[in-house]
Amino acid sequence: MSAIQPPANPEEKPRVKAVFDDIRATRGSDFINNIWRYLAFDADLLERTWSEVKAVMATPSALDPLTKELLYLAVSIINNCNYCIHSHSAGARAKGMTDEMHVEVLKIVSLAAKTNHLSNAMQVPVDPEFMVGE
Amino acid sequence: MSAIQPPANPEEKPRVKAVFDDIRATRGSDFINNIWRYLAFDADLLERTWSEVKAVMATPSALDPLTKELLYLAVSIINNCNYCIHSHSAGARAKGMTDEMHVEVLKIVSLAAKTNHLSNAMQVPVDPEFMVGE
Amino acid sequence: MSAIQPPANPEEKPRVKAVFDDIRATRGSDFINNIWRYLAFDADLLERTWSEVKAVMATPSALDPLTKELLYLAVSIINNCNYCIHSHSAGARAKGMTDEMHVEVLKIVSLAAKTNHLSNAMQVPVDPEFMVGE
Amino acid sequence: MSAIQPPANPEEKPRVKAVFDDIRATRGSDFINNIWRYLAFDADLLERTWSEVKAVMATPSALDPLTKELLYLAVSIINNCNYCIHSHSAGARAKGMTDEMHVEVLKIVSLAAKTNHLSNAMQVPVDPEFMVGE
Amino acid sequence: MSAIQPPANPEEKPRVKAVFDDIRATRGSDFINNIWRYLAFDADLLERTWSEVKAVMATPSALDPLTKELLYLAVSIINNCNYCIHSHSAGARAKGMTDEMHVEVLKIVSLAAKTNHLSNAMQVPVDPEFMVGE
Amino acid sequence: MSAIQPPANPEEKPRVKAVFDDIRATRGSDFINNIWRYLAFDADLLERTWSEVKAVMATPSALDPLTKELLYLAVSIINNCNYCIHSHSAGARAKGMTDEMHVEVLKIVSLAAKTNHLSNAMQVPVDPEFMVGE
Repeated sequence: MSAIQPPANPEEKPRVKAVFDDIRATRGSDFINNIWRYLAFDADLLERTWSEVKAVMATPSALDPLTKELLYLAVSIINNCNYCIHSHSAGARAKGMTDEMHVEVLKIVSLAAKTNHLSNAMQVPVDPEFMVGE
Repeated sequence: MSAIQPPANPEEKPRVKAVFDDIRATRGSDFINNIWRYLAFDADLLERTWSEVKAVMATPSALDPLTKELLYLAVSIINNCNYCIHSHSAGARAKGMTDEMHVEVLKIVSLAAKTNHLSNAMQVPVDPEFMVGE
Repeated sequence: MSAIQPPANPEEKPRVKAVFDDIRATRGSDFINNIWRYLAFDADLLERTWSEVKAVMATPSALDPLTKELLYLAVSIINNCNYCIHSHSAGARAKGMTDEMHVEVLKIVSLAAKTNHLSNAMQVPVDPEFMVGE
Repeated sequence: MSAIQPPANPEEKPRVKAVFDDIRATRGSDFINNIWRYLAFDADLLERTWSEVKAVMATPSALDPLTKELLYLAVSIINNCNYCIHSHSAGARAKGMTDEMHVEVLKIVSLAAKTNHLSNAMQVPVDPEFMVGE
Repeated sequence: MSAIQPPANPEEKPRVKAVFDDIRATRGSDFINNIWRYLAFDADLLERTWSEVKAVMATPSALDPLTKELLYLAVSIINNCNYCIHSHSAGARAKGMTDEMHVEVLKIVSLAAKTNHLSNAMQVPVDPEFMVGE
Repeated sequence: MSAIQPPANPEEKPRVKAVFDDIRATRGSDFINNIWRYLAFDADLLERTWSEVKAVMATPSALDPLTKELLYLAVSIINNCNYCIHSHSAGARAKGMTDEMHVEVLKIVSLAAKTNHLSNAMQVPVDPEFMVGE
């Protein structure tokens, strides 16, 4: 069903094992989900992707972890990534997303899609009040 | 520059004036930005759109106003709506988005776009652990 | 397979039952398709979505019902919504879309996608003759 | 502003002149809009594109010319092609689109974008009733 | 599972048989993949689509066959066409794409998606140095 | 015109200066284009983005530099990033893209967009022959 063949025993490669170990340590869980098992077909791509996900999503920052996960979910919905919608819906629930919040994300995402297209359809010019750069 | 001709004096129409008045009251500001001036070419579309924006974005709910605005901005970026990127960047700043938070939104949106496409490119199957419905 | 858990007995909630009854009455059919069963996990989202679908799609207006359904189908194809492509292909057939019309929709949608991207790739400037607004 | 340099005197090339003459004859107008002037940088691309546009859009078929133009406009909005939104809004008006119809297109396009994303967000399974193929 | 019903015996129609024969001759293989079997529900659409694919992809030109296939795959990933991702991943492998090249395509596509959205999010103005047209 | 305010004197920040120096050294040119000047509003985002662009695009690998640039351009067209279409059209020309190659990219991108949407519209099932993974 997939378009690449993931390695059967990814952790035989030391670089892959090191990333998987760090995923487990960072998350405090033994579960390695499929996206990492598939990215393991190339150690460089796996390392680079995990490094960025860890830095952006799993490091304390100005936005709290749940808000970050909701933003990730919203983007995944608009990009229509089936895998990502499932994994980040689950991820957001694990970080505290209630059903009520989930509904709100759906309402905002679908409302924004609606007004984005209305605005594009009318080719509304940007108000000078909104411009900050040159 | 636009693709429709907005009405020159929109508030001559009572239904439009009522919506504009409600926008001003809800926001505590006299400024009516262009999207509403353009939607005013049809009173029904204007009323329905404002009613939904007010209900979803300007009514106290499970998510705080800034989080909701950041979600709206993230969707607008992925949908590549120039007007909406400008208006919701400004809107988020007005609701407390700092430069640091703005950078984080950019990092999350662009990282999600990256992993969304990696996942689609490999056609990664969804882990059974992530499924909640039938 | 889905990312939310729809309610097992949605019509136990009076607000959901009222919407489902109105869907059945409007369509003259007992069949409630899945999108409504899933939206029923939140009565407010269900009511608001159905209300808009009914107003836009099931109310006599300047465009005939089949034309409206074909437009809905075209958008669903470009947005790559699997569920919506199936439901609106079926919906259009129910409203009179012949195989010949279906082929035409496919020809127009795919031709437009082609010239949309050619135009974007070349960044063609808009002819002044096409501008109507400021 | 554009990303390619269109030819200064496109009709010096006989193949380009032949296409431009056919555009003028088909439309009964001397106006050649920019997309054709830019496509003229390659005679083969110009001929093939015009041939398809003429066959799909300017040949009597199961759908009437206005319906076809509205479908083209709807796709152009979702693909966010600025040039195409302007040219096909103008084209639809020339073929009889009233303001009332224009508003309806906007309502349908934005509603469909909304429900497309709701459906994708929930990963709604397709009802067996909608399936026609294997 | 599909949204149209492909013909059970497509080669009973002479126009379809002629296209299928040309596909087999051009590719030197008896295998006719599903996209052509489904397009066969309309002979005109089938002929026109194959004619364009053959002219663009199977005719010697400035770009070599593998490069063309990689470009096709990259577009299919961004458009999130499940069928096309599978068929063009297989097609590229058949034309010489190694695993190393496949990984590179994934890295470029996902990096470009990332910087495309960063650029859109910031609404970066185009450098005058990059403009070639009017 | 932009949605963020880029720093007036970005190279006052040592981390930004180091990246700009590396861009100049890698490219053998003093020209720093706008995307880097805008990303300079956050040193971390600038460093991470340049590091990835350098590793993927400016390091010898299985694909030659021109092919990589054409893939980047193709993705930018489909994502409709105005800035990126301009910068990568110019970048590809600088790496040897001829007008003939540019036309081919346009033909492939627009053809792929067309067949991607035809395939999605018909919901064509993937041939078992194309599947490599589980």
